[in-house]
Amino acid sequence: MSADDQQERLDNSWIVGFVDGEGCFYVAINKIPKMTLGYQVLPEFRVVQHKRDIEVLKKIQETLNVGTIRKNHGNRFELRVRALNELNKIVEFFDANPLMTKKKNSFLLFRWIIILMNQGKHLSTNGLKEIALITSQMNRQRKVCLESSETIRQTFF
Amino acid sequence: MSADDQQERLDNSWIVGFVDGEGCFYVAINKIPKMTLGYQVLPEFRVVQHKRDIEVLKKIQETLNVGTIRKNHGNRFELRVRALNELNKIVEFFDANPLMTKKKNSFLLFRWIIILMNQGKHLSTNGLKEIALITSQMNRQRKVCLESSETIRQTFF
Repeated sequence: MSADDQQERLDNSWIVGFVDGEGCFYVAINKIPKMTLGYQVLPEFRVVQHKRDIEVLKKIQETLNVGTIRKNHGNRFELRVRALNELNKIVEFFDANPLMTKKKNSFLLFRWIIILMNQGKHLSTNGLKEIALITSQMNRQRKVCLESSETIRQTFF
Repeated sequence: MSADDQQERLDNSWIVGFVDGEGCFYVAINKIPKMTLGYQVLPEFRVVQHKRDIEVLKKIQETLNVGTIRKNHGNRFELRVRALNELNKIVEFFDANPLMTKKKNSFLLFRWIIILMNQGKHLSTNGLKEIALITSQMNRQRKVCLESSETIRQTFF
């Protein structure tokens, strides 16, 4: 890694502090009639910022090597991570670098769902019910997340 | 410092990341007729959180050894730093641990005002005008701060 690349990388503790303030762990369960079980589990990690700080989102993206940056709404942009292999990186990162706020509780539920999805549990009715139950426990965090994005709707409950 | 105390201290980079997301540097200039120049300069550093995360505010307070924790409004609490000697500690901290977002611009203007106040410039008409000019450049950040507190009003402009 060159010196320039090194400069672009953020300190892990800084990322944890920033995500404790601005990050969001969210799981949507959407009704998709054409799918076998009729529902799709859609976990998402997201950090939303005013466009003035899009460079910070890019640095987080580069440092964690995950996600895409897209317009959220208005003057806001988001770093969004949805791919399961990238969400596994997010889980590994926050396992190694624990959150300090109560957002950690949302993360632990989120982590549990990602583990179940790695096992393919979201593809069975019983597994889907288990994931739905865990998702319902993430409700506290959900309000915060919905405030920062209009792109995901919770439709399972 | 005991092992327990050590555990209570937060990593500096975590604090920077959290403040990049949640912190606020603000300067109010209030009309106070009974004061010699008729105005009082009131710089403030503030971090507001839902009451569920009041423990994190306490840890920041303990780590930086500044400020008081009080109710903001509704379910929110704030760590507030107003004393000049404690604001000097805040300036020293973010000099040594730079902010990563555009909030750094607000901090640099805030820092400039604190330096002028250390020199007693806020006690002269010319100094007060200079501080007012710098404060006017902090406008972008001001909106964010006002959203998180109803306790301070900008009355000079």
